Amino acid sequence: MTLSADTFPADEIPAIKRVMMPRDTNAVGTIFGGVILSEIDLAAATEAHRHHAGMVVTVSMDKVDFKRPVRVGDLVSFFTETLRVGRSSIKVKVAVWACRRFGGGLHEYVTEAEVTMVAVDESFQPVEVVRREDA
Amino acid sequence: MTLSADTFPADEIPAIKRVMMPRDTNAVGTIFGGVILSEIDLAAATEAHRHHAGMVVTVSMDKVDFKRPVRVGDLVSFFTETLRVGRSSIKVKVAVWACRRFGGGLHEYVTEAEVTMVAVDESFQPVEVVRREDA
Amino acid sequence: MTLSADTFPADEIPAIKRVMMPRDTNAVGTIFGGVILSEIDLAAATEAHRHHAGMVVTVSMDKVDFKRPVRVGDLVSFFTETLRVGRSSIKVKVAVWACRRFGGGLHEYVTEAEVTMVAVDESFQPVEVVRREDA
Amino acid sequence: MTLSADTFPADEIPAIKRVMMPRDTNAVGTIFGGVILSEIDLAAATEAHRHHAGMVVTVSMDKVDFKRPVRVGDLVSFFTETLRVGRSSIKVKVAVWACRRFGGGLHEYVTEAEVTMVAVDESFQPVEVVRREDA
Amino acid sequence: MTLSADTFPADEIPAIKRVMMPRDTNAVGTIFGGVILSEIDLAAATEAHRHHAGMVVTVSMDKVDFKRPVRVGDLVSFFTETLRVGRSSIKVKVAVWACRRFGGGLHEYVTEAEVTMVAVDESFQPVEVVRREDA
Amino acid sequence: MTLSADTFPADEIPAIKRVMMPRDTNAVGTIFGGVILSEIDLAAATEAHRHHAGMVVTVSMDKVDFKRPVRVGDLVSFFTETLRVGRSSIKVKVAVWACRRFGGGLHEYVTEAEVTMVAVDESFQPVEVVRREDA
Repeated sequence: MTLSADTFPADEIPAIKRVMMPRDTNAVGTIFGGVILSEIDLAAATEAHRHHAGMVVTVSMDKVDFKRPVRVGDLVSFFTETLRVGRSSIKVKVAVWACRRFGGGLHEYVTEAEVTMVAVDESFQPVEVVRREDA
Repeated sequence: MTLSADTFPADEIPAIKRVMMPRDTNAVGTIFGGVILSEIDLAAATEAHRHHAGMVVTVSMDKVDFKRPVRVGDLVSFFTETLRVGRSSIKVKVAVWACRRFGGGLHEYVTEAEVTMVAVDESFQPVEVVRREDA
Repeated sequence: MTLSADTFPADEIPAIKRVMMPRDTNAVGTIFGGVILSEIDLAAATEAHRHHAGMVVTVSMDKVDFKRPVRVGDLVSFFTETLRVGRSSIKVKVAVWACRRFGGGLHEYVTEAEVTMVAVDESFQPVEVVRREDA
Repeated sequence: MTLSADTFPADEIPAIKRVMMPRDTNAVGTIFGGVILSEIDLAAATEAHRHHAGMVVTVSMDKVDFKRPVRVGDLVSFFTETLRVGRSSIKVKVAVWACRRFGGGLHEYVTEAEVTMVAVDESFQPVEVVRREDA
Repeated sequence: MTLSADTFPADEIPAIKRVMMPRDTNAVGTIFGGVILSEIDLAAATEAHRHHAGMVVTVSMDKVDFKRPVRVGDLVSFFTETLRVGRSSIKVKVAVWACRRFGGGLHEYVTEAEVTMVAVDESFQPVEVVRREDA
Repeated sequence: MTLSADTFPADEIPAIKRVMMPRDTNAVGTIFGGVILSEIDLAAATEAHRHHAGMVVTVSMDKVDFKRPVRVGDLVSFFTETLRVGRSSIKVKVAVWACRRFGGGLHEYVTEAEVTMVAVDESFQPVEVVRREDA
């Protein structure tokens, strides 16, 4: 898979897929950007766990451009792909698409981000990525 | 697709897919059943909206058996299939699978439900299902 | 007590009673069905704990029919009665009534459910119900 | 009814009754005082609505003493009684009791408060209390 | 500092400062009083922790008068000052100001409260306040 | 002000300041990165509103590096400074510091971000920034 802003990846299984609710809105009535950023963070973690079974933490998120507002009732998909697996870090791309009216309408590209996760031990010190057999 | 409790539908795109968080727990530390039931309800709505663009409401949920507890950090997928589209009602099956450790571990069957949605107008009176061209 | 859809049980003490808030709404502005199902689940647990002091988990919820929408500001009561106490399971009926305008208006029947709880140990294995002296 | 800290009002129907969940905890692991104060506020509103069908707002809450911590899994009841109905204000007493282990254990007195509500119009200006026929 | 209802303390650093969101509203569309009371409670705790590093709990909150409604999008500041440090108790005044339109508009006085915190040990028994060197 | 990672800006008034609660945690028990990103987004909006009274939306967030985990009970401050005010956009720097134990402990630098907000009309189309007299 190569995620792109041009084509909705209709055949790919998203990392996260959620309906947006009124409790997710900001003061202007659209979905709060923080809700989208939160799910980007979780989506990246799920992708990182495909490579490493132990604990991972987010160390950075690259530039995020919000292309379109998300609305209440939108069904939002967060697609992921692994960009790079390093000694202790895993870099993940997350692409976000909103499908209007609970998933029954058009797919619109919302944003994308590159998130770097690091495998850590119980003291939050970096450890080597232990490749999963089932990855 | 025919959803079954025996085999994880690895190639199917779920209606909803979410990571469970500490705020979703009950008093014994596992994921609160109400959180799972809430997402079953939303998953059924997204499936119903594949058939009908207008407003739908849940009118009933058939027997739900909880086979296994869901835990913090589980990545839970809600798969749907349409069982029947009537004049104003749409019956949907929802199958729920938990993947341990943010999706990196085993897939375990959690529960399933049959949910009946009805197409309604602004006064919450039943209307005919208007088939979507894109369904 | 025998709970019925015909008469509001005005003299009964509900298991749960809550005011519905804007954060409990769905995309069409009424109260999200998942919120009601969550409280049904908790109401059944409180009834089960009248019989068993230890841990209980929900194993199934029978068919739930939503008769009427619930709205923001409604005061919703969840009444319970024990249907059957088995070796390790407790079956509970939950009847849900909404009182419009923070409890100052009409009582309307919303739904009912039959929920089966099971007494479990720390490993979530079924144990015998230990009758409470104060039940 | 005259609410007292000495005796649990076992035969009274509470204004609000809720199970406390992990998401309601504070940083020391007990239930956050703000959650209890929130429900006291709602309980007073439901009592005020027994007298006045229109909009009411909270104008003051008298001294609140927290006698005992509330814990996850406690079933907490908020009992109310009307102390005084004035031209546009309604003063309500709220007494809070926690029942340990989802309502199956001991009842312990948590706190009480006196809350003054005022009937207001759409511009939040005080209006006269319109007595309800069903009050 | 001496907090007053007459002048916004523009040069003081608040204990808590938050934007109010749609999920914080009550049934009449303004910010739920319970949300404000929750933050008053946390603000008092942060002030108490300036004096005592260990665990503190809220034992009482004096009369709170709500002068003005708070609205979605308001940026609300909670200012604190210590009124008295006793053997095991710390009394804190909290003054609440709302700044309309995310902090870009007028400052309006909302309410104030006096909160008494008590230093406690792991069993929630009162202990002496241990003055912090950095207080 | 020039925000820096080296020195806690003790004399500056933060845009946002919040105590972190158990409901803000992720599956490994520290504060969920999404919660921090959400408050960064709100902090940038409050800074943008110092320049423009009308509606603003977030269009991008530059690279965010998470230097240290945030924990339950931390008092977290979000400081802002305006980097550039363009025709319709406002670029804001946000610096995040955690103060351990409800603000009574050490200040630790958590992260920083540069967020670009755009002034928009009701249709979410860019409009010119209207300088506030009180900015």
